[in-house]
Amino acid sequence: MAYGLARRELRPRVPLRHGEGDKYRLTSIEGLAALSLDALSSVAYGPEAIVLVLVAAGTGALTATLPVTLVIAALLAVLVVSYGQVIAVHPDGGGAYAVAKKDLGPTVSLLAAASLVVDYVLTVTVSLAAGAASLASAFPSLGSHLLTICLIGLALLTAVNLRGVAESARVLMLPTALFVVSILGIVVLGLLRGHPVAVVGTAHPVHATEALGVLLLLKAFSSGCSALTGVEAIANGVPSFRDPRVKRAQRTELMLGALLGLMLIGMALLIRRDQVAPRGGVTVLAQLTAGAYGTGWPYYATNLIVTLALALAANTSFGGLPVLMSLLARDHRLPHFFGLRAERPVYRWGVVALALLAAVLLIAVDADTHRMIPLFAIGVFIGFSISQIGLVRHWAGERPRGWLRRATLNGIGAVLTVVAGIVLLATKFLEGAWVVVVTIPLLMLLFSRIQRYYTEAGRELGLGETPPPLSVADSLVIVPVSQVSRLTRHGLQAALALGHEVVAVAVYADPAKALALRESWDRWNPGVRLDVIDSPQRSLVEPIVEYVRRAAEGGRQIAVLIPEVEPLHRRYQILQNQRGLLLATVLRARTDVVVCVVPYRLSV
Amino acid sequence: MAYGLARRELRPRVPLRHGEGDKYRLTSIEGLAALSLDALSSVAYGPEAIVLVLVAAGTGALTATLPVTLVIAALLAVLVVSYGQVIAVHPDGGGAYAVAKKDLGPTVSLLAAASLVVDYVLTVTVSLAAGAASLASAFPSLGSHLLTICLIGLALLTAVNLRGVAESARVLMLPTALFVVSILGIVVLGLLRGHPVAVVGTAHPVHATEALGVLLLLKAFSSGCSALTGVEAIANGVPSFRDPRVKRAQRTELMLGALLGLMLIGMALLIRRDQVAPRGGVTVLAQLTAGAYGTGWPYYATNLIVTLALALAANTSFGGLPVLMSLLARDHRLPHFFGLRAERPVYRWGVVALALLAAVLLIAVDADTHRMIPLFAIGVFIGFSISQIGLVRHWAGERPRGWLRRATLNGIGAVLTVVAGIVLLATKFLEGAWVVVVTIPLLMLLFSRIQRYYTEAGRELGLGETPPPLSVADSLVIVPVSQVSRLTRHGLQAALALGHEVVAVAVYADPAKALALRESWDRWNPGVRLDVIDSPQRSLVEPIVEYVRRAAEGGRQIAVLIPEVEPLHRRYQILQNQRGLLLATVLRARTDVVVCVVPYRLSV
Repeated sequence: MAYGLARRELRPRVPLRHGEGDKYRLTSIEGLAALSLDALSSVAYGPEAIVLVLVAAGTGALTATLPVTLVIAALLAVLVVSYGQVIAVHPDGGGAYAVAKKDLGPTVSLLAAASLVVDYVLTVTVSLAAGAASLASAFPSLGSHLLTICLIGLALLTAVNLRGVAESARVLMLPTALFVVSILGIVVLGLLRGHPVAVVGTAHPVHATEALGVLLLLKAFSSGCSALTGVEAIANGVPSFRDPRVKRAQRTELMLGALLGLMLIGMALLIRRDQVAPRGGVTVLAQLTAGAYGTGWPYYATNLIVTLALALAANTSFGGLPVLMSLLARDHRLPHFFGLRAERPVYRWGVVALALLAAVLLIAVDADTHRMIPLFAIGVFIGFSISQIGLVRHWAGERPRGWLRRATLNGIGAVLTVVAGIVLLATKFLEGAWVVVVTIPLLMLLFSRIQRYYTEAGRELGLGETPPPLSVADSLVIVPVSQVSRLTRHGLQAALALGHEVVAVAVYADPAKALALRESWDRWNPGVRLDVIDSPQRSLVEPIVEYVRRAAEGGRQIAVLIPEVEPLHRRYQILQNQRGLLLATVLRARTDVVVCVVPYRLSV
Repeated sequence: MAYGLARRELRPRVPLRHGEGDKYRLTSIEGLAALSLDALSSVAYGPEAIVLVLVAAGTGALTATLPVTLVIAALLAVLVVSYGQVIAVHPDGGGAYAVAKKDLGPTVSLLAAASLVVDYVLTVTVSLAAGAASLASAFPSLGSHLLTICLIGLALLTAVNLRGVAESARVLMLPTALFVVSILGIVVLGLLRGHPVAVVGTAHPVHATEALGVLLLLKAFSSGCSALTGVEAIANGVPSFRDPRVKRAQRTELMLGALLGLMLIGMALLIRRDQVAPRGGVTVLAQLTAGAYGTGWPYYATNLIVTLALALAANTSFGGLPVLMSLLARDHRLPHFFGLRAERPVYRWGVVALALLAAVLLIAVDADTHRMIPLFAIGVFIGFSISQIGLVRHWAGERPRGWLRRATLNGIGAVLTVVAGIVLLATKFLEGAWVVVVTIPLLMLLFSRIQRYYTEAGRELGLGETPPPLSVADSLVIVPVSQVSRLTRHGLQAALALGHEVVAVAVYADPAKALALRESWDRWNPGVRLDVIDSPQRSLVEPIVEYVRRAAEGGRQIAVLIPEVEPLHRRYQILQNQRGLLLATVLRARTDVVVCVVPYRLSV
């Protein structure tokens, strides 16, 4: 924890990227803890997604889990090798957006940004929903409150991240180790035991509604690809590693690949052997847990560990998306306030935006993991493809020794991820992938419209140019008054200090009152002209705007100075006419004059 | 309707009081139509309130409806005679608040105002709830949506009154006539027939839970007194009558008394004869309607007429309360904005306040008339008592011929209304009257606190005094800048026209950026000093506030001029940093300097 504090003290001045440099850099093992939880925790929903598709062809079809998983593991292997090269070429990290901006031009970088946004949001929602399901597997009474649990979890993550979180590899070490040990324990113990020692959940009747054809296998593959999300995180975080950082990061990537592949294949073996079909109230992983450990305390402990790992995986998006949004804001592709940080080292608008988007999505799908799986992974595969294609371009451009071999390797990776992406999209289109197909271009359009505005605004503001020299003009300060009082005097006093000429203006509906004002004005005799505008029917604001407009035609610098009563206690504010503020707002919206407000403070 | 338009054209210039003077003044009959619907329509809930109390002693106790009603009718007679004198003494109308302010001092006038506010709100809610019950008597399927009907009705009344309603006696003539004819028809036809021709609603089993003792009779009397609300309206509206207005108004008051008394006694006779007990889904008035007319179209027509009359009765509060609130605002007892009228001749804040209060109350009691009866009438009886006591004071002060007789008459009225008020309060205290007992003093406290603020503020503003003469000071205009651009130039240009001295100030966290700004400033060389404040950790606003505070110590007039980018399209506003507006807000809250904003308009 002392470490966390030190980290926060270091952070305020320069924006730090996810895990970016300071003296507490990561070893390979620490890197695995800090950067791979997102990827590793996806074994909590990936295999289940496969099972859920295959069971449509009956429990017999569950045997196909193994070959489908092997294909996914092969794709994983290609990705791991490919990302080894990404790490070598981009030792400064950067992810798909930075790579695309550098090597593939603005349009592709917009695509990368849009798909990353979608992906970060889905990582939060899928992880939270799977975490809630895992928690409910241990405590069935929570089963009917999954959405509430997710929203509470989201609120907690948001609050922690708004306060500014100390990202620490050491903090993540224990949960990651516990998670890996628990899952590997399930696989090893489960395989040793030969049959499940306990069964949890309520059985669903399984009706085969489809034949086990190519389409179903492709669908199972698509769903299972959700297990590959997060594999890119290590390549994005290379700067966090201790030197030699490329070597260490590559080693970590290999470890991640090996561990993830082992877990997936092991779980597939268990699923095939025990014919694990979906059961009510528990996750597939919880069934495997019960099969290996029984239903004693290790069952509860494992489910809690899985929940914790998933919550921490959701937290990685809170580290990633706000930083991405600040980069987009710096590139003028999102409102500039996403790049603002207050005293705390947090892009709080990005955190809030992520929380809102995640909450809307969770509510829309009622916190059901399986309704989000078709939306998930597409964004990730777009990122995978962009990274690989960028690298192919890189090799073809630089042509170092052995460039052809390397380009071929990344080319194969690119082709595989593009094909997988197309399969994902085609098989899941009607089940929800269309949402992503609609959202990503809309986001790209949004980014480019915002960029267009900033470009034009910058041109009109003459950013980067030296403006013409200043000239000096005369000024007329107009002071709206309603009666003779110390407030009026206060306003005129300030106006006299500011203007070459000062005029007071009053609007009256009632001639008798206008006369009374004129008389008390003459009695006071402040040496300032008073213009009284007759306004029998119209509001008080409109005639003043009209008056100001006419005055502005003279070419002088016009300022309207509005004296405002400021009570000491805020609760009395409502007792003061807000006419002055209304006038200020209308003048600012409809004229080009300087609008000044001067407070007159009361002691009540 | 042409009449309505003419009326609206006449209204904007001078605030008109409820029915106040123009050439369309009222005859006695028109006065009855315009000013008595509130009182007459209370037969729709008054007798029912008596029945609901008495039935607690069994159906046999319903016989007591007649004597209770006779006592109420006697009280009505005293009130009518008493108000005849009120009319003579206050031919300018005014109601309890004006009378109390004139004759009984500030505290009593606060009491009058508070009880009137309570009463106006309850008139709206009770009338709407009774109207909804009447509608549901005709169309039973509406019975489960009473609250919704009330809120829709309230929304309609609010919308109409916000647009500015043309109060026209002629518009009210037909509904009032139809209402009076329908009710008198029920009484006459009902009594002629000798027995009810039809029975509607579902029977409740009646269990006698109490004996018919004095307390129950007093309670029945208290509840029945709700039928007397609105009797004061004619006295408040004397200026609306054609000359000789006192005579005409007195005649109208007499007609109102006679009609209302006749209706109440007639209904009591029918209730006694037919032993009309509360039945589910229909009102007592609807039972009497069915008894006299059967269940054919006259039944539906009568219920609709009653609903319409009650809705129009609710509308009288929308004529009354906003005007009362504007009077209170003019007396500095409510925020001044309640006295504001925009282009439309409507005190819209008063209308909105009434709508909100009524909506909250309706929701709180679930639109149940009987839950509001204990709250009702107390406010009215406070008003009755204040009017009578004020008149006694008046007679005792002026001592015209026959003053003792007149004072005695008003004195008896006062004693009776005070006693009745105490009975109301005592018998209904636990059933809800305590709410009024709490609310009225709180409102009085609110009024007097507001008045205290305005008095003190007026003193500090020197209202009514001639302020000291003006003196002239030098000025320093501070322009916060962040970079060299046309926006900066625009701001400095305006500042040079306004200040004797101008200084630009920039806040930078990053020394390299500060240096770059300094260089481009020197290249531009605008002839204005640039101060760069180093702010390694803190926000951008705080250092400028600090800088301004230090500058203000010099005794010069300080102005801070903030140049703001104004995109052409509002939707782009979010893309501009709102830092300038934030700075303006903070400066206005925490310093006494002049805060100026100058817009720089873009073409996007």
